[in-house]
Amino acid sequence: MRVPGFSFAGLAAGIKPSGKLDLALIRSDPAALVIGAFTTNRVCAAPVLVSRRNSRSGRCSAVIINSGVANACTGGRGMLDAVEMIRQVASRLKVPQREVLVCSTGKIGEPLPMDRVRRGIDRIIPRLRKDRAMQVAQAIRTTDAFEKISYRTGKIFGKKFHLLGIAKGAGMIEPHMKVEATLLTFFLTDLLLPRSVAVPIFRRSLGQSFNRISVDGDMSTNDTALFLASGQAGTRPLKGGSREAVLFEKILTEVMIELAGLVVQDGEGATKQVQVVVEGARNQREAQKIAYTIGNSLLVKTSLFGKDPNWGRVFAAAGRAGVPFNPDRTEILYEGVPVVRRGRPTSASFQTEAKRRMKAARFTITVRLHQGSVRHAIWTSDLGFNYVKLNALYRT
Amino acid sequence: MRVPGFSFAGLAAGIKPSGKLDLALIRSDPAALVIGAFTTNRVCAAPVLVSRRNSRSGRCSAVIINSGVANACTGGRGMLDAVEMIRQVASRLKVPQREVLVCSTGKIGEPLPMDRVRRGIDRIIPRLRKDRAMQVAQAIRTTDAFEKISYRTGKIFGKKFHLLGIAKGAGMIEPHMKVEATLLTFFLTDLLLPRSVAVPIFRRSLGQSFNRISVDGDMSTNDTALFLASGQAGTRPLKGGSREAVLFEKILTEVMIELAGLVVQDGEGATKQVQVVVEGARNQREAQKIAYTIGNSLLVKTSLFGKDPNWGRVFAAAGRAGVPFNPDRTEILYEGVPVVRRGRPTSASFQTEAKRRMKAARFTITVRLHQGSVRHAIWTSDLGFNYVKLNALYRT
Repeated sequence: MRVPGFSFAGLAAGIKPSGKLDLALIRSDPAALVIGAFTTNRVCAAPVLVSRRNSRSGRCSAVIINSGVANACTGGRGMLDAVEMIRQVASRLKVPQREVLVCSTGKIGEPLPMDRVRRGIDRIIPRLRKDRAMQVAQAIRTTDAFEKISYRTGKIFGKKFHLLGIAKGAGMIEPHMKVEATLLTFFLTDLLLPRSVAVPIFRRSLGQSFNRISVDGDMSTNDTALFLASGQAGTRPLKGGSREAVLFEKILTEVMIELAGLVVQDGEGATKQVQVVVEGARNQREAQKIAYTIGNSLLVKTSLFGKDPNWGRVFAAAGRAGVPFNPDRTEILYEGVPVVRRGRPTSASFQTEAKRRMKAARFTITVRLHQGSVRHAIWTSDLGFNYVKLNALYRT
Repeated sequence: MRVPGFSFAGLAAGIKPSGKLDLALIRSDPAALVIGAFTTNRVCAAPVLVSRRNSRSGRCSAVIINSGVANACTGGRGMLDAVEMIRQVASRLKVPQREVLVCSTGKIGEPLPMDRVRRGIDRIIPRLRKDRAMQVAQAIRTTDAFEKISYRTGKIFGKKFHLLGIAKGAGMIEPHMKVEATLLTFFLTDLLLPRSVAVPIFRRSLGQSFNRISVDGDMSTNDTALFLASGQAGTRPLKGGSREAVLFEKILTEVMIELAGLVVQDGEGATKQVQVVVEGARNQREAQKIAYTIGNSLLVKTSLFGKDPNWGRVFAAAGRAGVPFNPDRTEILYEGVPVVRRGRPTSASFQTEAKRRMKAARFTITVRLHQGSVRHAIWTSDLGFNYVKLNALYRT
């Protein structure tokens, strides 16, 4: 699981009281192209502010990541600490500070134990290896039940290229890079992409994956997604719209969908992964609004947990999404089984069959509006006792 | 508990399999002034469509209400049934059909058992009595744990007047008349109000009460609030802006706040009633957006259940409300105890004291933005195991 140009390391720096891995470093030598997407929360953590600024340089030589403490809501001190982490990494690696990014995830409102972080950075640099990406996936975990990593290779211009995706995040996921338990994702490739080609590819792939998952509508102060391209595969640069660019986008999207799926699957206390599909909408915005209103509805989510095809809740959620549609033409299907046709429930045998299909760990709810040709699909999870247990007692 | 001009009856018509009261009638003789506020859900039930139209006549002689079946999502048949209920009541009472309103609450997608409804209407009319308002409160219950009624008398122009509020609704309550377990509310007075005076009073009072409660962000197909004024107190008509109108508005708002509070208290599975106050906002819209984003956040609601002053969730919810503010100036208080000052956590003793105060069944979370002088307060409830239990297993 290597990507030419990149090396990796993970370490237990003592930030987490548990003694688990809590510091990670991704090194790109030479500097890679970087594109960042960050939380849009007004309350955003110091590392997000600093990394957003540095990512604008377009070049990245290293990403330092800690888990355990989010470095959020600590006032001016948080900024000093984030900048110091960058300064120290840059100085040890002998790269410009603007080429270093920092990500933090963990508890809000606590200051970083900077003595441990400093010693950790000193110790992590000599550990960098080409084949230690899994250590990064481990070190960035917080409430994650498992590591999330996805890897692909392919051929472009007759040369082998690599793509590696690493993610953390569990539960509390909402569209547009929004999480409490913070979503961090890194996508690394050795292809050569001009920024103008990479930006729309990265944006569209996010739009097809992480921006389509919803666990509870909450959103983090620290969410970050980074795309890094080292250019070390030895190919010519990808041209926008070319066959090669389309192929790469397809693979990147696949990797992102796989990782986003793992995040939903790891939704805190979740027992179901449910795709909500809205079909026959007049436009994308309307299809999306209805899909998210259904996917975020507490009543829908508890009915998924209860394996109850309670389509009235799906219908009512669609109705309050603020999108005009004709209920009398609406169809609702559970995993292909029609439960509502022309706004009315189908016969009991369909309802029974829908209930049976909800026993699966993954299924689809489809709402057909019959007023256009636009479709939008998102992933959501159920809301059960474990969600309450994990979140009510999170800090106790 | 009488209001001159009105009589009441409740009956077990056999719509609910439990055999409990499920049909109610409110009679106004002579016809009262009526103002209606209805669900804004696109998927709205037949009785809402019919009553919205009839309420525009401005006069109301009777309201027929059934529980057990919502008469929603049953296609054209639902409209026929709603219209037939009105026709039958109008014919028995010898009043115009347009002066009769109908409300239904209960299961979605099932047709009304019209033979039972018809027999029920025949039997309920002779039971009308001045002192049977409590029967109405009982007959309109669905998942409600208790009846909700509020009664006041006062003096205006030297004459005694009466105000009676009846509500049903539990859990699943969201601003702007939105509920799954349907919110029905009726406010009856014997004062004489011109429509032009009553409309703004009714609207403002709703804005201070039912439009400020949030249990889970879901919304019903059947929500209805009706204001009826019989004019039988024998006073002159209230003038807009007069001392008398202000006094009446104050009392109506009190009654509505009391009933809205009972609905939050009866939130399905709720153990806490929490007021979310946003202060120092630049305008009402922004204060409101932040208050609701906090009040609807699953993470905040589970932390209330866990009695955990997890202000990071409150802060992050405020941050994703789409309202610009400066986190470094923000204060957060739990029942008066500051947990965040200038964007940073206060000392451990404050955190401990905040935790202690969360043991109360009712408390307040205040967010101070320090960028204006506008304040908005809403009520929310916690999300615990019983919420999941009640909603996951609702139909099984």
